[in-house]
Amino acid sequence: MAIKKAIILLSGGLDSTTTLYYAKKKGYKCFCLLFDYGQRHKKELKAALKLAKLNKCGYTLVKIALPWSKSALTGRKVKVPVKNKHIGSEIPVTYVPARNTIFLSFAVSYAESMGAKRIFIGANALDYSGYPDCRPKYIKAFEKAANLGTKSGVSGVKLKIETPLISLTKAEIIKLGRKLKVPYSLTWSCYKGGKTPCGVCDSCLLREKGFKESTEK
Amino acid sequence: MAIKKAIILLSGGLDSTTTLYYAKKKGYKCFCLLFDYGQRHKKELKAALKLAKLNKCGYTLVKIALPWSKSALTGRKVKVPVKNKHIGSEIPVTYVPARNTIFLSFAVSYAESMGAKRIFIGANALDYSGYPDCRPKYIKAFEKAANLGTKSGVSGVKLKIETPLISLTKAEIIKLGRKLKVPYSLTWSCYKGGKTPCGVCDSCLLREKGFKESTEK
Repeated sequence: MAIKKAIILLSGGLDSTTTLYYAKKKGYKCFCLLFDYGQRHKKELKAALKLAKLNKCGYTLVKIALPWSKSALTGRKVKVPVKNKHIGSEIPVTYVPARNTIFLSFAVSYAESMGAKRIFIGANALDYSGYPDCRPKYIKAFEKAANLGTKSGVSGVKLKIETPLISLTKAEIIKLGRKLKVPYSLTWSCYKGGKTPCGVCDSCLLREKGFKESTEK
Repeated sequence: MAIKKAIILLSGGLDSTTTLYYAKKKGYKCFCLLFDYGQRHKKELKAALKLAKLNKCGYTLVKIALPWSKSALTGRKVKVPVKNKHIGSEIPVTYVPARNTIFLSFAVSYAESMGAKRIFIGANALDYSGYPDCRPKYIKAFEKAANLGTKSGVSGVKLKIETPLISLTKAEIIKLGRKLKVPYSLTWSCYKGGKTPCGVCDSCLLREKGFKESTEK
């Protein structure tokens, strides 16, 4: 039987790590794609490297610059919001313009080069309804473009973008991850890069809420 | 009147340079996006820098690595074909997986960050029917994905990808360029990076044919 290869967009956070373990469980030989895109800290990226190695995955770290990004995730001029009571109700300042489009483009190139027919991305439309590039209709549209724009797509080898977490709550993601034995202690979610997670940024709040709800009956 | 801003994907070759002059003629304030993606030579990129400066355009050079690309344009293991009699009949070895998808993704990010509503790309479907990411239906599909995946697209500011050369022959492009006073002597098309163009790679052959036909009646 031919080996099923998949590209995993791995940030080192809770969602993408769960996605990696999901793809592995589905029998894919996983190749992780990591990005250094000028994040304000490298904690998440270091977690991604550790997780890729732990799982004996092939991986590639792509370094890119987005000098025009004014996001709170890529620069220090905009503060990371804390104790935000409006998570999900509007597009947050942590939004990086076209980030998933850029990440997926590299993944398509990587996939085509190695003959992988699947790309896994931990996009989630529920908790972060604010990010337009995490919505199913965006993913579908991008997948279509990717297939029209590649040699493999034109020759009939359809590339599929898998988003197993897209409609799950954070608690459901964590429940799934526990079944898959995801070592969550190795993942990093906090937007800030302190010694320990800040506990008050959007990402920490969602993570905490998720863990809490995942243990409730 | 508000300034009409446009992002121009500028490689320094004949097509993208003509596209820059076309956009300028249409009244756009042009911001050039240049890529160092591990090309086997930097002659075209140097031409792009010169042309951006000559036209007093804002510009950004983005350096990216595509370590998996086996294209003749990004590595020396695959030879650039010479005296190829089958140009356009099949996808050539100079194809770089998902190149335009990657380039356009960065352009979308750049455009959104500065409030530009137009991206110009010198894609051409005629001479290089071999490149899947130069076809109108790919461009349309990508444009749709880009608008679904950005904050500006979601808020109703439609981003448009302009391909003024897409259905022109090389001779027609050159005729257009002459009207626009494109300094073709500053552009670089040759796939090889010698002191002078090799005259025998696909790009040189198409350029030569184009110039020849553009002067025929």
